[in-house]
Amino acid sequence: MKRIWKKSLDEINPYIPGKPIEEVKRELGLSDVVKLASNESPLPPSPKVIEAIKREAANVNRYPDGGGFYLKKAISGKLGLPAANIVLGNGSDEVLTTLLRTFIEPGDEIVIAKPTFLMYKISAAIEGAVVREVPMIDFKYDIDGMLKALGPRTKALIIANPDNPTGTYVNIGQLERIIEELSPDILLVLDEAYYEMARGGDYPESVDYFKKGMNNLVIARTFSKVYALAGLRAGYAIMDKDIAALYDKVRDPFNVNSIAQAAAIAALEDEAYMNKVLDIIRKGKERFYSFFENMGVEFINSRTNFVLVKIGADSSPFSKALLKKGVIVRDMSAWGLDGYIRVNAGTESENDKFCQAFEEALGERR
Amino acid sequence: MKRIWKKSLDEINPYIPGKPIEEVKRELGLSDVVKLASNESPLPPSPKVIEAIKREAANVNRYPDGGGFYLKKAISGKLGLPAANIVLGNGSDEVLTTLLRTFIEPGDEIVIAKPTFLMYKISAAIEGAVVREVPMIDFKYDIDGMLKALGPRTKALIIANPDNPTGTYVNIGQLERIIEELSPDILLVLDEAYYEMARGGDYPESVDYFKKGMNNLVIARTFSKVYALAGLRAGYAIMDKDIAALYDKVRDPFNVNSIAQAAAIAALEDEAYMNKVLDIIRKGKERFYSFFENMGVEFINSRTNFVLVKIGADSSPFSKALLKKGVIVRDMSAWGLDGYIRVNAGTESENDKFCQAFEEALGERR
Repeated sequence: MKRIWKKSLDEINPYIPGKPIEEVKRELGLSDVVKLASNESPLPPSPKVIEAIKREAANVNRYPDGGGFYLKKAISGKLGLPAANIVLGNGSDEVLTTLLRTFIEPGDEIVIAKPTFLMYKISAAIEGAVVREVPMIDFKYDIDGMLKALGPRTKALIIANPDNPTGTYVNIGQLERIIEELSPDILLVLDEAYYEMARGGDYPESVDYFKKGMNNLVIARTFSKVYALAGLRAGYAIMDKDIAALYDKVRDPFNVNSIAQAAAIAALEDEAYMNKVLDIIRKGKERFYSFFENMGVEFINSRTNFVLVKIGADSSPFSKALLKKGVIVRDMSAWGLDGYIRVNAGTESENDKFCQAFEEALGERR
Repeated sequence: MKRIWKKSLDEINPYIPGKPIEEVKRELGLSDVVKLASNESPLPPSPKVIEAIKREAANVNRYPDGGGFYLKKAISGKLGLPAANIVLGNGSDEVLTTLLRTFIEPGDEIVIAKPTFLMYKISAAIEGAVVREVPMIDFKYDIDGMLKALGPRTKALIIANPDNPTGTYVNIGQLERIIEELSPDILLVLDEAYYEMARGGDYPESVDYFKKGMNNLVIARTFSKVYALAGLRAGYAIMDKDIAALYDKVRDPFNVNSIAQAAAIAALEDEAYMNKVLDIIRKGKERFYSFFENMGVEFINSRTNFVLVKIGADSSPFSKALLKKGVIVRDMSAWGLDGYIRVNAGTESENDKFCQAFEEALGERR
């Protein structure tokens, strides 16, 4: 076949996800494997969610509600916003892909940080966008640099808040500066996948700015993290209702499966369980912090459930050494962060296994 | 906000799905509603599928296997094709959307029939494609007309086989003619959502042509119909491995949720249950045929689980009359088929309710 595919694809390397536990077991012949590589919830979903999934199982011969009536209603009640300001996606990945598909024409630009979540660059490049990457300074957002990178063809400034993989964030003062200086014809997209973990202190409650009338603000959130529904794929975003109507033109009509809708509603209702997950994450992260300090290893303070850790020049063999000991973490080379790994807080026993494997791997290296 | 969204969107009307049962109950205050509007399976999924869903429920805090290893393996075993020739999607809707996103640049063309599944036109138009629609003749594919519509910018000829909403199909001789005349640089996309219902006689086993080396052939199939998994969103396609690699660049990394993957594997394994579903569909359709004949109502012979029925000039009020009696069918005005409805075979009692409501509505009209 002649080269008939889209030209933009030639430059794109597909996103390589963290390896599933099953795959590592299969490939390395291991029986006991822990995965601390994909920033998932350390706990399974709430028992009420599991009930909702089981209840919905016998109805899956029917298409999902394409409008997501009840899930939007639940989110809208929680946020105090009309359902017309909410869109749903097959994970917040799809929310962002769909948003880019709504706005990007070849040659348009987006501005993002470096390092940040890799999918922004990939999804935008597929649509033919020019991606302006603004390096972080000391692993923190360079707000000046990002504002300077905006131009007449910029369609969106996309900020992961907090960022993945650094765990750092844009604070209230910085967000207000961006809002003040940003043209109303450029979308400000805040990807708040870790919102529930980041809340408090000077972390901004972005929905308040939306409520005050900033209608070029888009806030994406997910059920994949503290709500423990990564496998089911459910995300949402808050946006101006006219943008939501455009988004709904572009998305597939049945993009969010019916079990995800039922599970997400149940997860939203069980706040006590979410707090339990948050508590385990907090404890695990504190443990990691003191462990790394004891080991004399540098790390970045994080507002999420993961920590970026400096291993030195050989992070790729180091990650492989951990893998052979049954611990999956993320080697950060694909982010341009040679010498770093990213690890997320798990259950107490998973954290034990990680710390032991980490200490052994450090020892073997010396 | 200035008009910063993609220009192609202005011309697009979003796909309007069949109303969910819950929505009709809510809107009309009815308690007993049957839905024969979305060509779903008349039965819930197999008990083995329900077991698989329940088993998977506690693991949804983990991301799905982005590569779909086990599901691809199951499909590949069934078809006798390498897993590298199989891609997965969030329903076959997403398979087709992703394929178009892989190939279409603004100004490229696709050729489809009229009427056919509405999503081809919508998805292609979002990517900026020019959509050439070739009217069917007597509700059958006009092969000559479609071949004549191909041009130097045509990227794909998309055929729903069998077609939705007509239920008619391209037979072996017609397919072979297309294969003979089609440039190898144009994709032939066969959407075989109803494949399992259509098999036999002169309906082509398209995979055989793929195996014989036709590498511009793409065959899309779904778990939403006889496998009764519409709610879960799982579809797949068979294609050249280089095209599959491009497709995998464009799709979101976790596009198929983990419960859908487990359920689809279980559904593939339970062939006895699928045959039971096929049997109920066959009986329901035969009943509809004789019912319409007795009523003196014209219909189109169908290789699927649905039937296109001629109501006359007033199909929209007629559909609404059925709706008020608790029966959801599809009014075909959105397809440009004023005067027609589409109804799918349900369970025996659902078919009873439909026939009674239909007869009443006919009587009220006279």
